[in-house]
Amino acid sequence: MQSQEKKIAVVGGGSWATALVKILTTKPGVLINWWMHNEGSVAHLLKYRHNPKYLQSVEFDLNRINISTDLEEIVSPADIIIIATPSAYLFSVFENFPKKLLENKYIFSAVKGIIPEINEIPGQFFQKYMDVDEDNIGIICGPCHAEEVALERLSYLTIACQDEDMAEYLAETMANRYIKTTISDDIFGTEYSAVLKNVYAIASGICAGLGHGDNFQAVLISNAIQEIENFIDEVNPIHRDVKSSAYLGDLLVTAYSKFSRNRTFGYMVGKGYSVKIAQLEMDMIAEGYFATKCLVEINKEYGVEMPILEAVNNIIYEKIAPFIEIKILADKLS
Amino acid sequence: MQSQEKKIAVVGGGSWATALVKILTTKPGVLINWWMHNEGSVAHLLKYRHNPKYLQSVEFDLNRINISTDLEEIVSPADIIIIATPSAYLFSVFENFPKKLLENKYIFSAVKGIIPEINEIPGQFFQKYMDVDEDNIGIICGPCHAEEVALERLSYLTIACQDEDMAEYLAETMANRYIKTTISDDIFGTEYSAVLKNVYAIASGICAGLGHGDNFQAVLISNAIQEIENFIDEVNPIHRDVKSSAYLGDLLVTAYSKFSRNRTFGYMVGKGYSVKIAQLEMDMIAEGYFATKCLVEINKEYGVEMPILEAVNNIIYEKIAPFIEIKILADKLS
Repeated sequence: MQSQEKKIAVVGGGSWATALVKILTTKPGVLINWWMHNEGSVAHLLKYRHNPKYLQSVEFDLNRINISTDLEEIVSPADIIIIATPSAYLFSVFENFPKKLLENKYIFSAVKGIIPEINEIPGQFFQKYMDVDEDNIGIICGPCHAEEVALERLSYLTIACQDEDMAEYLAETMANRYIKTTISDDIFGTEYSAVLKNVYAIASGICAGLGHGDNFQAVLISNAIQEIENFIDEVNPIHRDVKSSAYLGDLLVTAYSKFSRNRTFGYMVGKGYSVKIAQLEMDMIAEGYFATKCLVEINKEYGVEMPILEAVNNIIYEKIAPFIEIKILADKLS
Repeated sequence: MQSQEKKIAVVGGGSWATALVKILTTKPGVLINWWMHNEGSVAHLLKYRHNPKYLQSVEFDLNRINISTDLEEIVSPADIIIIATPSAYLFSVFENFPKKLLENKYIFSAVKGIIPEINEIPGQFFQKYMDVDEDNIGIICGPCHAEEVALERLSYLTIACQDEDMAEYLAETMANRYIKTTISDDIFGTEYSAVLKNVYAIASGICAGLGHGDNFQAVLISNAIQEIENFIDEVNPIHRDVKSSAYLGDLLVTAYSKFSRNRTFGYMVGKGYSVKIAQLEMDMIAEGYFATKCLVEINKEYGVEMPILEAVNNIIYEKIAPFIEIKILADKLS
């Protein structure tokens, strides 16, 4: 498989999609089909070679990229489709897409969110609703802020797929001077973990907003990674080490970083902004906001004890005062 | 045991000792014997009720504390001795101390360092050199910056002792409005982990100084907690979860916090300061500096793969350029 060059499509126009296209086009010879929804952004890209909305500093070589708002045109010729839309839009993007066009293709999710219409992670959506085989599902996960990819700061990606050859192929394709890659076969655990970490980043922001310090944050995050492990081990009990970069690293980079929109959203809520005002003030979607509600729903089936998830849910959906909810949570942590 | 009030002594005059005395005297009725080396500091404390050098904002109730530079006077009447001197001074403090005076007493180490003269953690020093029984050894560990204790920010301590009643007793004594406590029986793992985390905080600082971003830090710390687990599981193979606050939390608070002197020391080295200049610029001892050398020595016996520890050792003792050493390290992380 490594000998044959694959055609790769990227679906999405946000910062993470933009970073992924930058990474993929760093490797000589790779050609990318890039779909985005916004016609104005496509026109801007074709004229000025920069995405006008995200990672504006990144310049693209237009000889290496075919950009279009026509999803069928972008997806049809590709062997590997990398999905990087916000989870809230994914369902509508693929709702009327002919399943047949995804036959024998590999779908890699870089979404890190739950699809609200169906309460499923993207990998499950493509299996259940688009008839993609489990072996053809993959996940691309960090720890990796798009903003640092733009700055070409050394970052690590984990490429998960049950087809090890394909995981190896994409890992080799994406590795470069500033990106190191490892592979995994844990497509459920890595994706759920990537979703959950956004909720814990909101929790971390709320606590910072309330005035809690580094000592408390360290306890919160230690408990969060245990909550992640308990949940994914229940949903998909295979051997995994959540101290690996794809799980713990991804949690750390989101919960501790100034780039995290989820943490910023939580911080505003902790400072006393209403959820609505905090959302209006931010011009990016905090994936964790939607994920919280969906995960609480999903966990009704599994019944895992998840006090931090519950606390975030109570604050942002049940309107419990952050001060009170975190005071109750603090007694459950250790 | 809980019914009887114990007499507690604190040995040490630095910021962590000062924070511990503050915590202990928050509980009504507790009387503390406090030893410190510096006569001027004792005189200042007795006159102005503040430690002149550390956590100057903390005011002490002198009716609750007996302060002295006479170690025998402080230790003799106590049932529990909490040791909070820098590890580099511990040997000389107890070198000529009569072992008999420690008979039947409980020794809790809050040192977080290796004693350079003997290459042992404090718990082992008191067992091997001062004839204290293993059941009478305890550890007090964070995640807990002394500076945040001074600010009364919510913090968690783990009290480890193989005598569970004693662990419970001290945990109850130290718990208050802003301190929550849990207990453990892992006196080797918690103490080694507390020592190792200082080395990883230096590594974190070096990488930040070199210009690496949040993405790389997250990978470094994920690898560091695995290195901690591999080492302590080899030294003392009992069941433990290093994702608990006493291990992972302590690593996080040190590696990510602006209060960490080890991280600051590493940052200066990463920025290009020589080790000597970096030490001169700081007025506190970076425990990890000494710990690195000692741990490399100790690990010769165990042979655990510890690439981050090795890298820090190569930079601060073997004078390998940080840029080169971290570039080599980056290839070993995942």
